Amino acid sequence: MPAFLEDYRAQVDRALEKIMPPEGTNPSRLVSAMRYSLFAGGKRIRPILVLSSASCLGAGSDSAMSAACAVELIHTYSLIHDDLPAMDDDDFRRGKPTCHRAYDEGTAILAGDALLTLAFEILSNSETGHPVSPEVRVRMIAALAKAAGWRGMIGGQQVDMDSEGQVPTQPMVEYIHTHKTGAMLRCSVLLGALAGGADDEELKGLKRYGEKLGLAFQVVDDILDMTASTEAMGKDHGSDKARGKITYPAVFGLDESRQRARKLIDEAREALAPIENSEQLADIAEFVLLRRL
Amino acid sequence: MPAFLEDYRAQVDRALEKIMPPEGTNPSRLVSAMRYSLFAGGKRIRPILVLSSASCLGAGSDSAMSAACAVELIHTYSLIHDDLPAMDDDDFRRGKPTCHRAYDEGTAILAGDALLTLAFEILSNSETGHPVSPEVRVRMIAALAKAAGWRGMIGGQQVDMDSEGQVPTQPMVEYIHTHKTGAMLRCSVLLGALAGGADDEELKGLKRYGEKLGLAFQVVDDILDMTASTEAMGKDHGSDKARGKITYPAVFGLDESRQRARKLIDEAREALAPIENSEQLADIAEFVLLRRL
Repeated sequence: MPAFLEDYRAQVDRALEKIMPPEGTNPSRLVSAMRYSLFAGGKRIRPILVLSSASCLGAGSDSAMSAACAVELIHTYSLIHDDLPAMDDDDFRRGKPTCHRAYDEGTAILAGDALLTLAFEILSNSETGHPVSPEVRVRMIAALAKAAGWRGMIGGQQVDMDSEGQVPTQPMVEYIHTHKTGAMLRCSVLLGALAGGADDEELKGLKRYGEKLGLAFQVVDDILDMTASTEAMGKDHGSDKARGKITYPAVFGLDESRQRARKLIDEAREALAPIENSEQLADIAEFVLLRRL
Repeated sequence: MPAFLEDYRAQVDRALEKIMPPEGTNPSRLVSAMRYSLFAGGKRIRPILVLSSASCLGAGSDSAMSAACAVELIHTYSLIHDDLPAMDDDDFRRGKPTCHRAYDEGTAILAGDALLTLAFEILSNSETGHPVSPEVRVRMIAALAKAAGWRGMIGGQQVDMDSEGQVPTQPMVEYIHTHKTGAMLRCSVLLGALAGGADDEELKGLKRYGEKLGLAFQVVDDILDMTASTEAMGKDHGSDKARGKITYPAVFGLDESRQRARKLIDEAREALAPIENSEQLADIAEFVLLRRL
């Protein structure tokens, strides 16, 4: 991981540590489970997108950090719930027992609920002297809730679950990917743009970048699930196929999936053309493709 | 139920119908499960508290209705998740199969997540020409997230779950009740107060009212669980005891629990003394005690 990403990641980890109650805080089992999953070694891609997007508009981390933390809290909750026995039934994530295996199912459900709720508390908390105006913060909360909700991420997870074992089609895989993973990646870029005070043209470019990057991200993930070693992925390799999941390679084959990922990344980079100082975002797109991020 | 409560309830139902996607909207299984639980015949006590609290400050339903809907969405999500096999494992609620029995566990988890997320979307949505300023709305979102989160409702549910089968003590039952049920009832009154532009003294009185009412509500619920018929409750009677739940009667006995409920309701009413036009709130407190609401 290149230096600027490592730097962002460390900043995000410090900020998350600040907003989270310390281990031992009551109710201690709940707090412990929340911390366990939040500090399980995530790459912090979504918060990095928030910070990078704000940064190319000249906004510092102070303006964008609460949104950066909020997207990571929501990402973490979604992993906890997706891993549950009633959904993907995964015992391991990033090489560690999943939350419901390390604690119990009830606690894992509540820890997820609490992380989701905390995301909105962080974005609305005024006590910390938030530099972004209430007008903009209300817009950010609305954008986050929409991206994470029934016609965004949760909708994608539902269709993913409902379509297991069905014959994979292009509309199906595109719906799942643009919703389940794409919506929150796109929203991360958008939140940074709002925190940074983007004008209409900048907003348009950044939205398009986020959209293309979001889809590319999941295509690369699908490809890796088929080809990478179990060790590199931290989960069983080929597990999507074994489970009858709708994936890009299942619809298009590996070669065409790779070409499509490349094309999406190129389109993401092109969308940045009208935006000054967007080199970091362009680099991030490239790292997503090479999966060094 | 007296006429003004019926009227509020009908208003809330209409508003919820407006914000919810209609049956058949994609992803249809998710939307259907959300609607199933939201329109399962709830008494809408929390939204009625929001509207009544705003109303005694002279604010109309247009100012307070999005907060009223938000608290009901969060209440509904909490019921869906609490009923899950990994938590209370209930098959019926209000005489109908619980969400995970009518659909499936994965869908029920996601429907709960989606209702929780939608609550914040509703409160932050600017498109509807919201009459409350962004400054106040950010405060409302913060209050709601805090009340619903790890040191509010979710914390109470965690301790409730962790303490099943333990010897019931007063600190334990008070923690569970003030958090699990109390926090959201208190918050409902607070949101109405914020929407209605309460001054400091009004805010203080309404907060105290909400606190006392919130605790009384759960004490009455515990008493009814021990004494009422299964039919009246829509769930097995005495089910708390059978499950080793920490309840008020388990700590204080039935008679003292009844006296404490009466005292809490009196204190709730007394807290309204400095607030003009608070007759509706006083009536609601009385109805909670008599459980005609």
